[in-house]
Amino acid sequence: MAPLISLATDFGTRDGYVGALKGVLSRLAPGVPLIDVAHDIEPWDLVGAVLALRNALPHFPPGSVHCVVVDPGVGSERRGLIVASRGHLLVGPDNGILASIFPAAESTFHAIRAEHFAEVSATFHGRDVFAPVAAELATGRPVAELAEAIESPVRLRLPVASRAGNLVKGEVIHVDRYGNLITNIPAGVLDSSRHIAVSINRKPVRAGRTFADVAPGDPVSYWGSGGLLEVGVREGSAREMFGGRGLPVEVVRYG
Amino acid sequence: MAPLISLATDFGTRDGYVGALKGVLSRLAPGVPLIDVAHDIEPWDLVGAVLALRNALPHFPPGSVHCVVVDPGVGSERRGLIVASRGHLLVGPDNGILASIFPAAESTFHAIRAEHFAEVSATFHGRDVFAPVAAELATGRPVAELAEAIESPVRLRLPVASRAGNLVKGEVIHVDRYGNLITNIPAGVLDSSRHIAVSINRKPVRAGRTFADVAPGDPVSYWGSGGLLEVGVREGSAREMFGGRGLPVEVVRYG
Amino acid sequence: MAPLISLATDFGTRDGYVGALKGVLSRLAPGVPLIDVAHDIEPWDLVGAVLALRNALPHFPPGSVHCVVVDPGVGSERRGLIVASRGHLLVGPDNGILASIFPAAESTFHAIRAEHFAEVSATFHGRDVFAPVAAELATGRPVAELAEAIESPVRLRLPVASRAGNLVKGEVIHVDRYGNLITNIPAGVLDSSRHIAVSINRKPVRAGRTFADVAPGDPVSYWGSGGLLEVGVREGSAREMFGGRGLPVEVVRYG
Repeated sequence: MAPLISLATDFGTRDGYVGALKGVLSRLAPGVPLIDVAHDIEPWDLVGAVLALRNALPHFPPGSVHCVVVDPGVGSERRGLIVASRGHLLVGPDNGILASIFPAAESTFHAIRAEHFAEVSATFHGRDVFAPVAAELATGRPVAELAEAIESPVRLRLPVASRAGNLVKGEVIHVDRYGNLITNIPAGVLDSSRHIAVSINRKPVRAGRTFADVAPGDPVSYWGSGGLLEVGVREGSAREMFGGRGLPVEVVRYG
Repeated sequence: MAPLISLATDFGTRDGYVGALKGVLSRLAPGVPLIDVAHDIEPWDLVGAVLALRNALPHFPPGSVHCVVVDPGVGSERRGLIVASRGHLLVGPDNGILASIFPAAESTFHAIRAEHFAEVSATFHGRDVFAPVAAELATGRPVAELAEAIESPVRLRLPVASRAGNLVKGEVIHVDRYGNLITNIPAGVLDSSRHIAVSINRKPVRAGRTFADVAPGDPVSYWGSGGLLEVGVREGSAREMFGGRGLPVEVVRYG
Repeated sequence: MAPLISLATDFGTRDGYVGALKGVLSRLAPGVPLIDVAHDIEPWDLVGAVLALRNALPHFPPGSVHCVVVDPGVGSERRGLIVASRGHLLVGPDNGILASIFPAAESTFHAIRAEHFAEVSATFHGRDVFAPVAAELATGRPVAELAEAIESPVRLRLPVASRAGNLVKGEVIHVDRYGNLITNIPAGVLDSSRHIAVSINRKPVRAGRTFADVAPGDPVSYWGSGGLLEVGVREGSAREMFGGRGLPVEVVRYG
């Protein structure tokens, strides 16, 4: 596969930060396509970044290099990380995001050598470290020349749903652009999802398959495209109806 | 012309939905440039999508494939559509947007075969149907292998301005990023637009040629770049001054 | 270097304006990569545009063409400008932005010939003038065929920090996406920045190197990646804590 570099950040697109990354990448990896994945991730939102990237990156072809910069710890001692998984290479700060996208069992982890952090700015490692490293990888430089294998990258602790018999307790962990509430309850948790009852914040919500199962303005729960239980409102906002992150969600199987 | 794929959605860029489309497209149509047209269309705003795309897509070269996903009916029985017009191919849900961009008289319409909707998610046809179909088209697969010709796609009913003699009555149908009010009154409706008086919500507004005709902070009406009458405020927001969609607008020719 | 065209505007991405530019560019410069720099610059924010572009454009490789359209004066008599500097070509309205990105001493300035403004829309010169000119430049047409050399482009008057002995007085000139406050005090102004005290709006702020120097929620001042003094709050918003543009900032060197 021809290489490509994808970019995901919390930089927004009103300042020049994304442009600086792309300038560096265009200069150091000329001709390699640059593909924007998401730049409006909420500032420093590690969980939102993980969910966005889990939904997006696995669809890219092997050979892709993904430059991911959501970096609340910039300038601290946190390391830079390269993750190699399923033919993809991910580059960014070692803060839990990168090690949470692909399955750990199919990944190797590498700490970017300290020399890459020498004589760079203290506030923009995206421009000064991660973009240059991504460009090197996209132009064929081996990971081993840039980084050393490590065993234990920082891992993000996402809240985990719990199951007791036919009851699963979870919570809302993300709100998407439409106001849909994404929970931490994975599709397979109850083996069968045919006969379930769902409640959010103790209020029952119809368990359906998609928005079209309810009338406009009505709420519905469904297994989302990312493999997690979601609560949405057809042509409306579940966040406005119910609230956001942290809301308790329960699923009961009764059939 | 070398192919390209343009993307327009209401997905925003804080989640991974746009990235998922691009991952699929990069995998299935490697090397084909992906060009973002607009991802911040208001959620499920069919009219806003039509106006945005009418302003953008005709400027692309023949051979372009446009993947357009604003999809309030995802998961319902609504069809998937391919529109072929002037050398362009448009792919997306059959909900009125796609059939409203290019002139119907110069377009052919094709329903994506039901087999493409089998075994896909119920909430993300952009990723599972429209992006794969767009990739196939961009890599040269004939429309007829993917879809069947139909006569009657869903058509969007935009409110139409009415004319009686020298008076045209219309309304605001869209508000743009700057707060400019776009009406449904087309430039040619009065044959000549040299001597006209314009009112919005019964308040007169100066009829000019461009923002520079008035002082900063003052309102002006003008024939917009998309061919429709607009009301704007120089370096300000007409929405804040007058209001938004649905406001009545009248044009009188007096010369 | 292979050419590329970068785009920076205040168009946002909910309307079709960016798409119209890209359509024109794709048609007139087929195969040339289009790279989004920033489209959410605040409407008509010349200072914000300059800061964004100073941070981004110099990182691109020589041979880049940059199409920059933040254009409060569209339709007026203001000229169109091409700036040539360090192998880059910048195209856009002559309103002070373009002449403020690269050092004037290393730049030549050229007014786009009036014929390019004949028979175009009065409200969308980005689509009708600047994108076509950018496409011509990116496909190898010499600047001299499109524009005439001029000596005095419009220059933006950014407020300038003043120094008296060990005291520098400046102000906040921009707020970035995170709420960081960017001042007009450049890094070299005090020769050494090792021992300084910083205040904003007369309140002292710790002078540090990066966000990691303070606890989450605490403010810190630092020399930003763009070479200017900034005031930020770790994982928070300095704008919410202190305010925005125009706030007075003082730096005293005491060592």
